Amino acid sequence: MEFKTLLAKQELQPYLLKARYGIEREGQRVTLTGELVDTPHPARLGNRQYHPYIQTDFAETQMELITPVAESIPELFQYLTGIHDVAYRSMDENEMLWPLSMPPALPEKEEDILIAKLDAFEDVLYRRYLAKTYGRRKQMVSGIHFNFEFSDELLQKMFSMQTEVLDYHQFKTEVYLKVTRNYLHYSWLVTYLFGATPLSEARYFEGCKRPKEPVRSIRNSSYGYKNHEDVKVSYCDMETYLADITRMVEEGKLSEEKEFYSAVRLRGGKRMADLAKDGIRYIELRNLDLHPFASCGISVEQVEFLHFFLLFLLWQEEGPILDEWVESGLQKNEQVALEHPLEKTKYAKEAHELFDEMLAFAKELELPLTKDLLPKLFQAVKKPEETLAAQLYLASQKTSQKDVAVQIALANHRKRWAKPYQLAGFEALELSTQILIFDAIQKGIGVEVLDPQDQFLQLTVGDHIEYVKNGNMTSKDNYIVPLLMENKTVTKKVLGKAGFRVPRGREFHRVEEALASYREFETQAFVVKPKSTNYGLGISIFKEGASLSDYQTALEIAFKEDDAVLVEEFLVGTEYRFFVVDGQTKAILLRVPANVKGDGVHTIEELVAQKNTDPLRGTHHLTPLEKIQLGEIEQLALKEQGYQVHSVPKKDEVVYLRENSNISSGGDSIDMTDAFGQDYKEIAESAVKALGAVVCGIDLIIPDYTQPADEPGAYGIIEANFNPAMMIHTYPYQGQGRRLTMTILELLFPEMFV
Amino acid sequence: MEFKTLLAKQELQPYLLKARYGIEREGQRVTLTGELVDTPHPARLGNRQYHPYIQTDFAETQMELITPVAESIPELFQYLTGIHDVAYRSMDENEMLWPLSMPPALPEKEEDILIAKLDAFEDVLYRRYLAKTYGRRKQMVSGIHFNFEFSDELLQKMFSMQTEVLDYHQFKTEVYLKVTRNYLHYSWLVTYLFGATPLSEARYFEGCKRPKEPVRSIRNSSYGYKNHEDVKVSYCDMETYLADITRMVEEGKLSEEKEFYSAVRLRGGKRMADLAKDGIRYIELRNLDLHPFASCGISVEQVEFLHFFLLFLLWQEEGPILDEWVESGLQKNEQVALEHPLEKTKYAKEAHELFDEMLAFAKELELPLTKDLLPKLFQAVKKPEETLAAQLYLASQKTSQKDVAVQIALANHRKRWAKPYQLAGFEALELSTQILIFDAIQKGIGVEVLDPQDQFLQLTVGDHIEYVKNGNMTSKDNYIVPLLMENKTVTKKVLGKAGFRVPRGREFHRVEEALASYREFETQAFVVKPKSTNYGLGISIFKEGASLSDYQTALEIAFKEDDAVLVEEFLVGTEYRFFVVDGQTKAILLRVPANVKGDGVHTIEELVAQKNTDPLRGTHHLTPLEKIQLGEIEQLALKEQGYQVHSVPKKDEVVYLRENSNISSGGDSIDMTDAFGQDYKEIAESAVKALGAVVCGIDLIIPDYTQPADEPGAYGIIEANFNPAMMIHTYPYQGQGRRLTMTILELLFPEMFV
Repeated sequence: MEFKTLLAKQELQPYLLKARYGIEREGQRVTLTGELVDTPHPARLGNRQYHPYIQTDFAETQMELITPVAESIPELFQYLTGIHDVAYRSMDENEMLWPLSMPPALPEKEEDILIAKLDAFEDVLYRRYLAKTYGRRKQMVSGIHFNFEFSDELLQKMFSMQTEVLDYHQFKTEVYLKVTRNYLHYSWLVTYLFGATPLSEARYFEGCKRPKEPVRSIRNSSYGYKNHEDVKVSYCDMETYLADITRMVEEGKLSEEKEFYSAVRLRGGKRMADLAKDGIRYIELRNLDLHPFASCGISVEQVEFLHFFLLFLLWQEEGPILDEWVESGLQKNEQVALEHPLEKTKYAKEAHELFDEMLAFAKELELPLTKDLLPKLFQAVKKPEETLAAQLYLASQKTSQKDVAVQIALANHRKRWAKPYQLAGFEALELSTQILIFDAIQKGIGVEVLDPQDQFLQLTVGDHIEYVKNGNMTSKDNYIVPLLMENKTVTKKVLGKAGFRVPRGREFHRVEEALASYREFETQAFVVKPKSTNYGLGISIFKEGASLSDYQTALEIAFKEDDAVLVEEFLVGTEYRFFVVDGQTKAILLRVPANVKGDGVHTIEELVAQKNTDPLRGTHHLTPLEKIQLGEIEQLALKEQGYQVHSVPKKDEVVYLRENSNISSGGDSIDMTDAFGQDYKEIAESAVKALGAVVCGIDLIIPDYTQPADEPGAYGIIEANFNPAMMIHTYPYQGQGRRLTMTILELLFPEMFV
Repeated sequence: MEFKTLLAKQELQPYLLKARYGIEREGQRVTLTGELVDTPHPARLGNRQYHPYIQTDFAETQMELITPVAESIPELFQYLTGIHDVAYRSMDENEMLWPLSMPPALPEKEEDILIAKLDAFEDVLYRRYLAKTYGRRKQMVSGIHFNFEFSDELLQKMFSMQTEVLDYHQFKTEVYLKVTRNYLHYSWLVTYLFGATPLSEARYFEGCKRPKEPVRSIRNSSYGYKNHEDVKVSYCDMETYLADITRMVEEGKLSEEKEFYSAVRLRGGKRMADLAKDGIRYIELRNLDLHPFASCGISVEQVEFLHFFLLFLLWQEEGPILDEWVESGLQKNEQVALEHPLEKTKYAKEAHELFDEMLAFAKELELPLTKDLLPKLFQAVKKPEETLAAQLYLASQKTSQKDVAVQIALANHRKRWAKPYQLAGFEALELSTQILIFDAIQKGIGVEVLDPQDQFLQLTVGDHIEYVKNGNMTSKDNYIVPLLMENKTVTKKVLGKAGFRVPRGREFHRVEEALASYREFETQAFVVKPKSTNYGLGISIFKEGASLSDYQTALEIAFKEDDAVLVEEFLVGTEYRFFVVDGQTKAILLRVPANVKGDGVHTIEELVAQKNTDPLRGTHHLTPLEKIQLGEIEQLALKEQGYQVHSVPKKDEVVYLRENSNISSGGDSIDMTDAFGQDYKEIAESAVKALGAVVCGIDLIIPDYTQPADEPGAYGIIEANFNPAMMIHTYPYQGQGRRLTMTILELLFPEMFV
């Protein structure tokens, strides 16, 4: 097949750098001082029997982080970093991931290396077999598996431009077989550039032959974790490949197909038999050591290069005898793997030529690569000290490899824990959505962001699909309920009919009409507000009635905001937000206007600065709380209380800087869930039920929550919100946080919470 | 009880003219020439066993239209006129309602008056008993029953301002008993003003004593349909009242409690026993003849006066001996009822005094009555020819009462049928909501408009409550589905994953990003559009690819409308709207741009004017279709085709005046439901299922619907709408109308459609 000619066709150009990617990253859990942990796999994570993202590999300490299939490199790293965040923050805070492929010092007794405690007995059995055949120590090495699939558009178009192969599956198989053979032939270059296991740690080679260290890659040499030498498989065509593996298994050289380790694994359906039927769907590169300096064990640059390299390998001619072509590559790889990392490689000339060809290829096909990508790697061919193995070796020379690894791991650990309310990779989303994704990944619920702008997620468990928008808009609520809650008049009517206390009031559409009802409100506490605005605009509150002219002014202000205005009884008391899910009050929050508490020493300005050092306070809703400002509004509020920013409030005096209690203007959120009795919770719950809502943030005015809820005037319901904020409950200023995102997941996937 | 003092308190003033009202209006169904019909009660109406709005009274021909309880006079008349609209348009178009209390000429044989065919045997039995006791002819008289309840706020406040009565129910009973006694005492005034049965029609008095006609009110005289003379009941207190009625029943003078007819019926719970327990909740005035000239049998002015009058009667002193006070009133009433309608009444002086007192009362309590209300009625006291009885009598003198009645009925009939897509009283709502309410009333589903601005309805059948917004936003869809459909990118992803053909394309957030993908679209038909706008703004279509600069311009235009832009494959073919409900395609519509068809004679301007005479065409969405305009856009469209408004197109030539096919710009809607095969319907249905929607308008591009749907490119899905328009299907320009509003009701209340 003349792939070279095909690839050069103009029409293909837009699709050459499109692909689907997936990464599996293994890593040992260690203590903060770099010792293997003796704790089990974190219990916070969903069961390993189904977990799509976080598994264990050979040992109980050896986490395996698995991205879903990604359609682009940014998406791939979004998932990879996100899953790392979840893995870290699901472990005890005094554990971390070892950043090297080479495991940390191993136990003296081999049996102290604990095989992963999996539910499925066959999985345990397989690991026991591996332990026996290869030894537990060798199995402790970690790496990256990189799954790669050319874009279907590219392959479909290539297929339609040729006539040699009539079956599309067959065509794809030929593409991937050529790429695989060439990859095996040139794998020494990957080992040279990215190999990163120069030195062994204590007891890794206990009782085995060992190479003369340092090398480029222990893991990719014959001293790594490899099949025994008598395992040989041909890649010349699919039939031979399958026949060879089958024979190895029959002859007992392999226990089963998956025991065949190679730098490339051919992937079809779930079982190897699917390869024969449907051909190769994608390939898995397995020869990548963990990148010590990349916080997820692999860098964006590496992935971009690998994609480019695989495309180049499809273009690049092969040698005349295919099995020899592969075999010669494997031999070169063994040599390169065992070279001293600071030495020039024996194949420097070939590497040079290869880079020249790659640059020419990139130019001919007008590939829009990152500008520095090839030149930088080319540079490493010329300067061995720029390879990963060399860098790690050089750093280790100053102290020890262990010390270097611990410092890297600690830096990663600090970063992962710095902003626990964020999810790395997903920071562009709203905080609630970030946390919901965090929880989904933790539980093992499949997550796909269908639209980041719209905070629109798809969650999947098996065949069960749920969609979520803005963190808690889901299929569990029916469509009419939020529409009902959106309309204050309708909400009040429905609650009123159901017997709940709501502010008495009327809706008006003209000032004159409202003026005619003046006598109904004249002498009582009442509020005039636009019907639909939610931002406090156009609202006037009269706590002791109002004159006709003040009433008229208030109406005119309100009618500027909306063509419908509500005039309502004003309920006196404190406002509490009840967060009700599926009939149960999951959280109760009090919001207090921005304030500082005096100490008799510091000025208000200083107290504000102090309070703002709380890591939960930030700006632009990127944190659960907002920093208190000292702008015009706050200074005016101070002035009205006889203060300036330089005043020093008395000890324990609380000075308010705002009238409104919004968290977004620096207010404090205080969790009160446990302070309330069941009676108020039942009122909130039954009101939400009357509205028909499943997820609802309902606001009650309560003069004194220590009084029984059934006393007259004990409560009034002023608003019901269909997309209530969750973050304010999860990371409150004071009191216990409530993980409402997990509650939402439980609502959507009860089967995962049994 | 000193009600006079109480009522004068300032605090009560805002509540004096608040009340709850209900009307029952009886009316005979007649042919267009004024003969009693021989058809059964309309089958289109829901069963009389439960119908809350439209029942039959004594005879099968005698409709009874019942409003729900209304909180204001406008609301009362909204329901009353709406229910009339439904009653008319549920009858055959050659039937109408007789506008007089006096029935039209009755059959010669009494047995030809058919007793209403009710399901419940006891209801039929009761009517048979009445027929035997009073004769069928007398039962054929119709009238208005007016239910009245003072506002609870008023009574509560009055109750709290006195100390004499300790029980609120008892207090209310005293209020209503006083009003009732006074009403009976002064009922002669109501008969004078509103009596409207001056003349009998053929065979009404067959074989009975008859008065000397004309009179003021046959119906309210002893010649009307009254209890026998030996039925006497005291209103002095509740115990005596109940004891009297019980005694009448025991003595066989009444068959049961409800046979007790009086100008006022005291109403408590469902059974009379509830009166003893809970007191009087409201009263029912039964002495109102149908207002011959009011299209619903009663006028707004009458209701306003009656409310005022009842309030006045609560204020007005009674005579010292209560039973005498009532009895003397009844005697006066008999006299007034039998006076000649053009004569001054015997009690003109008392009437005069009463009006003086009423005017003084209204002034003292600052009641905001309609300015003319009392003066106009006062005038009728002075000029008997202005009373209703006199007006009807005078008109009848010119031809005959029958002819007058037929002319009135025909005028009402014409009005009810003029705009069948509207619902009288509810014209401020969207057409779809009007029709939904029409269908609900027809079926006997309780309707309440919770918010007219928001088209928000509450529908009720027994304990089953449903809410509807905008005609088809209901509880049957779950919340995430419309959010999903609102987002074009997410919709496409979900449909694409489920295997449906959707336009391939990409979403971009910056021009440069989109430009980088130019090569993907360069040579194919594609469209550039803002992600979220729905009004055709910012869309560019390139049917044969585009140059880079045209592409860039299109992107810049689109980015002006939204910060996300879609670049998509453009699907060629005709767009059809599939309206799917609960998995079934209920309607398929083709929309054609505004056009006229030439006849070789008329100019385009004339053809447009001709087409616009269609009563379905109007402006501002008040009709199912819009008039074709001849504005700038249309003239430009003509110019591009080489035409002007004065051009004369050839016979059968279709000239388009618009590019877009929106009905709102004069387009034609063509029903195609039966033209399509099941295969396309199944695609629409399964796509809607994949989206999870229950109510959905899904738009398919289909090049040729006569080709099988499973051929490649046979269809593409371009949009899914979660609140699809219904009116365009119900009243299409061409083809069969589809009553989708009834489909929605069936979805919500399947129990009503078994």
